[in-house]
Amino acid sequence: MAQNLAKINMADVARAAGVSMATASRALNNESGVAEATRRRVLAIAEELSYVVSPEASRLAGGATGRVAVVVPHLSRWYFGALLEGLESVLRAADLDVLLYHVGGIDDRHDFFHRLPARRKVDAVVVLAFPVEEEEQRRLSLMGVTIIAAGGQHAPYPNVSIDDETAGRQAMDHLLFLGHRRIAMIAAVDPDQPDDEQPSGRSNAYHAALREAGIPFDERLVVTVDWGGAEGADAMAKLLSQPQPPTAVYAHSDEVALGAVRTLRRSGLRVPDDISVIGIDDHPLAELTDLTTVRQPVRQQGELAGRMLMDILRGDRTDHDVVVPTQLVIRGSTAPPRT
Amino acid sequence: MAQNLAKINMADVARAAGVSMATASRALNNESGVAEATRRRVLAIAEELSYVVSPEASRLAGGATGRVAVVVPHLSRWYFGALLEGLESVLRAADLDVLLYHVGGIDDRHDFFHRLPARRKVDAVVVLAFPVEEEEQRRLSLMGVTIIAAGGQHAPYPNVSIDDETAGRQAMDHLLFLGHRRIAMIAAVDPDQPDDEQPSGRSNAYHAALREAGIPFDERLVVTVDWGGAEGADAMAKLLSQPQPPTAVYAHSDEVALGAVRTLRRSGLRVPDDISVIGIDDHPLAELTDLTTVRQPVRQQGELAGRMLMDILRGDRTDHDVVVPTQLVIRGSTAPPRT
Repeated sequence: MAQNLAKINMADVARAAGVSMATASRALNNESGVAEATRRRVLAIAEELSYVVSPEASRLAGGATGRVAVVVPHLSRWYFGALLEGLESVLRAADLDVLLYHVGGIDDRHDFFHRLPARRKVDAVVVLAFPVEEEEQRRLSLMGVTIIAAGGQHAPYPNVSIDDETAGRQAMDHLLFLGHRRIAMIAAVDPDQPDDEQPSGRSNAYHAALREAGIPFDERLVVTVDWGGAEGADAMAKLLSQPQPPTAVYAHSDEVALGAVRTLRRSGLRVPDDISVIGIDDHPLAELTDLTTVRQPVRQQGELAGRMLMDILRGDRTDHDVVVPTQLVIRGSTAPPRT
Repeated sequence: MAQNLAKINMADVARAAGVSMATASRALNNESGVAEATRRRVLAIAEELSYVVSPEASRLAGGATGRVAVVVPHLSRWYFGALLEGLESVLRAADLDVLLYHVGGIDDRHDFFHRLPARRKVDAVVVLAFPVEEEEQRRLSLMGVTIIAAGGQHAPYPNVSIDDETAGRQAMDHLLFLGHRRIAMIAAVDPDQPDDEQPSGRSNAYHAALREAGIPFDERLVVTVDWGGAEGADAMAKLLSQPQPPTAVYAHSDEVALGAVRTLRRSGLRVPDDISVIGIDDHPLAELTDLTTVRQPVRQQGELAGRMLMDILRGDRTDHDVVVPTQLVIRGSTAPPRT
């Protein structure tokens, strides 16, 4: 017991046992002047607390904080929550704590990187799925900690993600295989990012697939909106306001696709009989709404990022990117075009 | 400058500037033997780092950690993400860091409370929307920190939440007003909780509304499932397998309701023409899928919990619960029953 007692805080024991510090001390050191029942209560509580080594003390001595900062642009969206869930599970299993930093808009982000609250509080920083600007990279590098990214291919750090262009091709090839030639794209962008920093894989896939199929590009069939369902609904309305609407729609995400489906339903059009719709993600509600999509394993990307970080912190391997595969999931929102 | 310099770490400055400790020291102390360009670079970096007071040192001295533990049972569900987003925004504005603990299944939870990793690492614990068992409460109290809850009425701590029974009544009263008499309930429970610890407000509302309307209770019209869309879909199938199915369905959440809608669509039934469906939450996808629901302000509950915590930490007020109002949102999934 003596070894354990060295690690615990007498004040905590006294408070939990409801006795004075002096009484707690006498009880723990087996001195006289303490009722037997009290002594036993104090010992039981001390034992209960004993395995909890003061984390500050032990970790400051070791030089590492035992904490990882996770920086995330959205928390209430499924994609980011699932990434975070996977990442947290691995870090916690390794007894690392997660310090959460939600940075919403561009001002919030600039403020975060300007103040860099994580400095010296953490062993590592994980950036979840947003681009890191040059000035932000510079500030991160000043921290001198390990940095990795998950869920995006637009960071200069070791990264776990899908191949956006491959995912887009899986969606486009499905529509082309069904016989569609007049295919629209609802492209999604982050309003806080300059155009030249937007990830372009999903858009590249559209152009490459059309080119290979010998279908001329028609700029009226591409609408670019912010990520989100309401935005997808607006984009679909724009596509329907043309003399010759598309027979199929490729949306950059399931939420955008579900917005498009709502506009089609409100217009009295049937999905997929009149117009086919495909998304990317396999959001849990895609299954519920019978949406054809390209599935990406999101939680798994978070887990792999956690393992990559553990490996790097242990010095077990050099940095390299990990790409996880995506897969077409055919449901009820796609069909051959009407003849 | 001298005051700032006292706070920074010479090794950090030297590393960031790419010079030796000796050079950094000479530059900072304005001693000779350092090239002017180097001296200026070192000073600029020192200034850049200077406002970052070593947080460990200053906070340990003050006795507070500057951190709050947030314990959450799900991260990839919108409801919990939105709660967390609101809470984090307030805590970060107050310069408090959020330590995130995701406790998934019951084993995970028991393990968390048994090890209580937050012990002595945090000033407070916020429990997001899950019941805390008596043994877990005992361990929490041993920590001697401030504890509050958000999003659930089943915790013995100061709490921010909606009134579940009122929300349920808003849903039921809408269906009754439309003229429905044969109303089913899809009740949702947490599989990790014993029956007597399940929050019962949303179910009580069903029984009270029927009673007041003089409609006899029919146990075949109540199906209890775990929270989730797929579960709602199964429950609806069960309701449809009866000789006399309901004309309206009250689901405990939007995700459960959307599952029910899927089963109805697959059965060739029209919503709301054949059967009306209403949920609770106003999940972002409820708007996209035209689901009538009872809206609860989720992000706001997180923000209010953050402010409540700040008030308690400052000693500004005694503990009391906060209840935020809910509101009926009529969309396209409810209509009078067919005559």
